[in-house]
Amino acid sequence: MTDLARAVMERCDLLGTCSEDPGRITRPFASDAMRRAQNYVHEWMRRAGMQVRRDNIGNLRGRYEGAGPPTLLLGSHLDSVRDAGKYDGPLGVLVAIAAMQRLHDADRRLPFAIEVLVFADEEGLRYGSTYLGSRALAGQLEARDLALTDADGITMASAIESFGGEPARVADDRRTSDDLLGYCEVHIEQGPILEARGLPVGIVWAIAGQSRFEIVFSGEAGHAGTVPMDRRRDALTGAAEMVLAVEATATTQQGLVATVGKLEVEPGAANVIPGRVVLSLDVRHADDNIRSKVTEALLARARETARRRKLSVEVRAVSSNPAVQCAPRLVKLLTQAVKECRQQPLQLTSGAGHDAVVMSSLTDVGMLFVRCKGGISHNPAESVTAADVGVAIDVLSRFLDLLAQE
Amino acid sequence: MTDLARAVMERCDLLGTCSEDPGRITRPFASDAMRRAQNYVHEWMRRAGMQVRRDNIGNLRGRYEGAGPPTLLLGSHLDSVRDAGKYDGPLGVLVAIAAMQRLHDADRRLPFAIEVLVFADEEGLRYGSTYLGSRALAGQLEARDLALTDADGITMASAIESFGGEPARVADDRRTSDDLLGYCEVHIEQGPILEARGLPVGIVWAIAGQSRFEIVFSGEAGHAGTVPMDRRRDALTGAAEMVLAVEATATTQQGLVATVGKLEVEPGAANVIPGRVVLSLDVRHADDNIRSKVTEALLARARETARRRKLSVEVRAVSSNPAVQCAPRLVKLLTQAVKECRQQPLQLTSGAGHDAVVMSSLTDVGMLFVRCKGGISHNPAESVTAADVGVAIDVLSRFLDLLAQE
Repeated sequence: MTDLARAVMERCDLLGTCSEDPGRITRPFASDAMRRAQNYVHEWMRRAGMQVRRDNIGNLRGRYEGAGPPTLLLGSHLDSVRDAGKYDGPLGVLVAIAAMQRLHDADRRLPFAIEVLVFADEEGLRYGSTYLGSRALAGQLEARDLALTDADGITMASAIESFGGEPARVADDRRTSDDLLGYCEVHIEQGPILEARGLPVGIVWAIAGQSRFEIVFSGEAGHAGTVPMDRRRDALTGAAEMVLAVEATATTQQGLVATVGKLEVEPGAANVIPGRVVLSLDVRHADDNIRSKVTEALLARARETARRRKLSVEVRAVSSNPAVQCAPRLVKLLTQAVKECRQQPLQLTSGAGHDAVVMSSLTDVGMLFVRCKGGISHNPAESVTAADVGVAIDVLSRFLDLLAQE
Repeated sequence: MTDLARAVMERCDLLGTCSEDPGRITRPFASDAMRRAQNYVHEWMRRAGMQVRRDNIGNLRGRYEGAGPPTLLLGSHLDSVRDAGKYDGPLGVLVAIAAMQRLHDADRRLPFAIEVLVFADEEGLRYGSTYLGSRALAGQLEARDLALTDADGITMASAIESFGGEPARVADDRRTSDDLLGYCEVHIEQGPILEARGLPVGIVWAIAGQSRFEIVFSGEAGHAGTVPMDRRRDALTGAAEMVLAVEATATTQQGLVATVGKLEVEPGAANVIPGRVVLSLDVRHADDNIRSKVTEALLARARETARRRKLSVEVRAVSSNPAVQCAPRLVKLLTQAVKECRQQPLQLTSGAGHDAVVMSSLTDVGMLFVRCKGGISHNPAESVTAADVGVAIDVLSRFLDLLAQE
C-alpha cells in the first residue's frame, strides 16, 4: 500500500514535467506535452495488466479483463489548465491504475472487467470547450466542436489528426452502455471541507448544478468632480449592491454558493463616474429547484436595483447545467468501503464539474474526493499527502471488492 | 453683442479643426496642432488691439494697455484632452478676447491694463503633468518637469525648443504679482447645475479641494464552486461595501462628491472568487476640513470592513489638493455684473480643477461658468449655445466696467 501510494506521488511529479511551458504545468489537449504524459501512462497501464488503446479523440482506454462481461469504468483526465497543479486529473488516473496494479500483482480477476479511462480533455484550455474526452466517449461531441480553432488557428479536427486520431471517426469512440456497471472517479476535492473536518477522503453524493450569467449595468459616465451625487447614474454603485446581494442570498441557504468573480468598470478612470459595469454571476447548488429559485430572485434583484437607480440592466444567460446525482448504490458501496478502511464516511457535494457529469448520461456515476491542502486547485500550490493517497487507493480497492461481492 | 457671440462660436469651431488626430480634437502641448491654433488666436488678439508675445513655455500673452499701471489678468487654456470637445479651454480664451475687442472697437481705455493669458497646457495630455502653462507663469515649474518625456520619448525641454522657446529661460516666464488686480477665468461648467437651474452663467465662489487614494483589498482567490460561503475571503464583496459606503457618505453632506471610478478585480474570472481588488477613491469639497474628515471616516471604514471580513487592506495617498477660495471682491463684482445683465446670480463651486487654482498662488482669482449641455465635457458632445456665450461676454465686459469704477 505504502509503495503504491509513493509510486502515485512520484508519477504525479513525473507527469508534472510534461508541460508546454517551461517551469510550470500547462498540458493542453492533443499537445506534445500530452503525448509525453500519455506515453508514461500507457506504460504504467500495461504494467498493471491492461490492454491499452487510444481512441480517435485521444483518450487512453485500458482494459483489465474480468471473469464476466459486465464492465466497470474508472478514470479521470490528463489535461490541465494553464499554470496548473500536479493532481487535478492525474491523481484520479493514477489511483485507478494503482488499484489495477494491486489486482494484477495478486493475479486476481473480478466477476467484471474494468476499463480505466484517461480523458484527453476536461479543462477545455485549448478549445474553450470542456469535457472533450468524456463527451466523445458518451457520443456527445458535435461536428461544430471539430471546427473550433485554438489560439493559433488550428482546428480541433486537425489537432486530432496530428495526435494520431481520425476526426471523421470520433463518433466511433462512443461507448455502448449495455454492459456498464457504472463509472467511478477519484479526484482532489478542490475545496476546504475535508481538511476542515480532518478527513483524508469523502464520498460525493451529488455534483452541483450551475447557472452562469453576465449582467451589464449601464448608467451615465460623468466628471467625478462636477456631477452632484443626486444627479448621478453610477453603474458601479448599482453593481456593488448586486455583489452584496449575491453574497447575502448565498449565505441563507445550506450548500449554496454564489459568486461574482468578474467585474469590469468602464471607463475605469479615477476621476470619471462609472458609466457601465459588466459582471459575472455564478450560482451552484445540488438541488436544481433551489438553484433556479435563487437565480430568479437574484436577477429580479438586479432589475429592481437598476430601476431604483435609473440604470439599465441587461442579463445574458451564459450556461445552465443541471445537478448530477451520484447513484445511491455506488454512494453506498463507497461509504461502506470508507468505513472498512477505518475512516469516517463524510458525504459531500462537488461544487466543481467533473468528467462524471458527462459520464452520468451513459451510466451510474460515483466519486471519491481526496483532501487537498487549503482546498487549493488550478494552482501550482495544489498539494495532497501520500498517506491520503494511500487511503484513496485502499478505498477504491475495497470498493472493487464490495462490487465483486454483490 | 450677437456678432461677438457668433464670432466666438465660429472661432471655437475653427480651433476645433486644429488637431493632431483626423476627425477628432486632440491638441497637446507644443504640438503642430497647437501652433496652428495659436496662429489664429494670435491674430485675433492683435485685431482686438493687444500686443502679443509668446513666452518660453509657449503661453500666448496679449496686453491691452490701460490708463494706469495695475493689470488685470484674464485667460484660460488652449490645449485639450484626447478626443475632446470644442469649448473646454478655448471658450474662456475667446470670451476674454471678445471683451477686449469690444473695448478696442469703442476705443476705450480702462484705468488698468488687461493681459489675456492663453495657457499652453492645462490638461497634461502630453506629459501627464497638468497646469504647465500657469505653473510656468506662477514660477512653479521645476527642473524635473523639463526632464519628463512624452510617449515618443521626447523630453519637455526639447518640445519647448521645437516650439520656439528656450527651456533654460522658462523661469523668466514668471509673472511678478506686484501690479496685479486679479485673474478672472471664463470656463464651461462641466457639470449639470446651471442647466438644471435654467441659467446661462454662474459665479464660482470656490474650487473644491480634492483627495485621491488607491485602496487595495486582498483576500484569497478560490474556486467559485468548491469554497463554502463561510470560508471565503472575497476581496470584491469587501470592495463593494466600500463603494456603497463612499456613496452613502457623500450624500450626507451638501456639496460633497465622492467617487470610486476605477475598480479592478483579480484574477477576474467568472469561476474564481476574487482574491484582490484595487480601487480608486476621489473625494472633493470646497471646505478642506469637511473633505479631510470625510476622507478619514472612509478610510477607517475600509479598515473596519477589511478587519471584519478577514481581508488585508492597503491605502496609498495619490494626491491631496486644498480648496481654492475665489476672492470675495471678485465674486461680488461678478455677481453684480450678472445681475446687471438681468440674470439670476447663482454662486456655485467648481468640482474640477482649473488654471485659476495655480493662479491663486499669484493673485486673487474669480471664475465665471457657462452652462453646457448635459454637463458633458472632455467629450466631442461638449455643447454651449451662442446665446449663453453672449451673456458671458456681456457679464465679463460689465465686470471690467465695474472694476474700472472701483
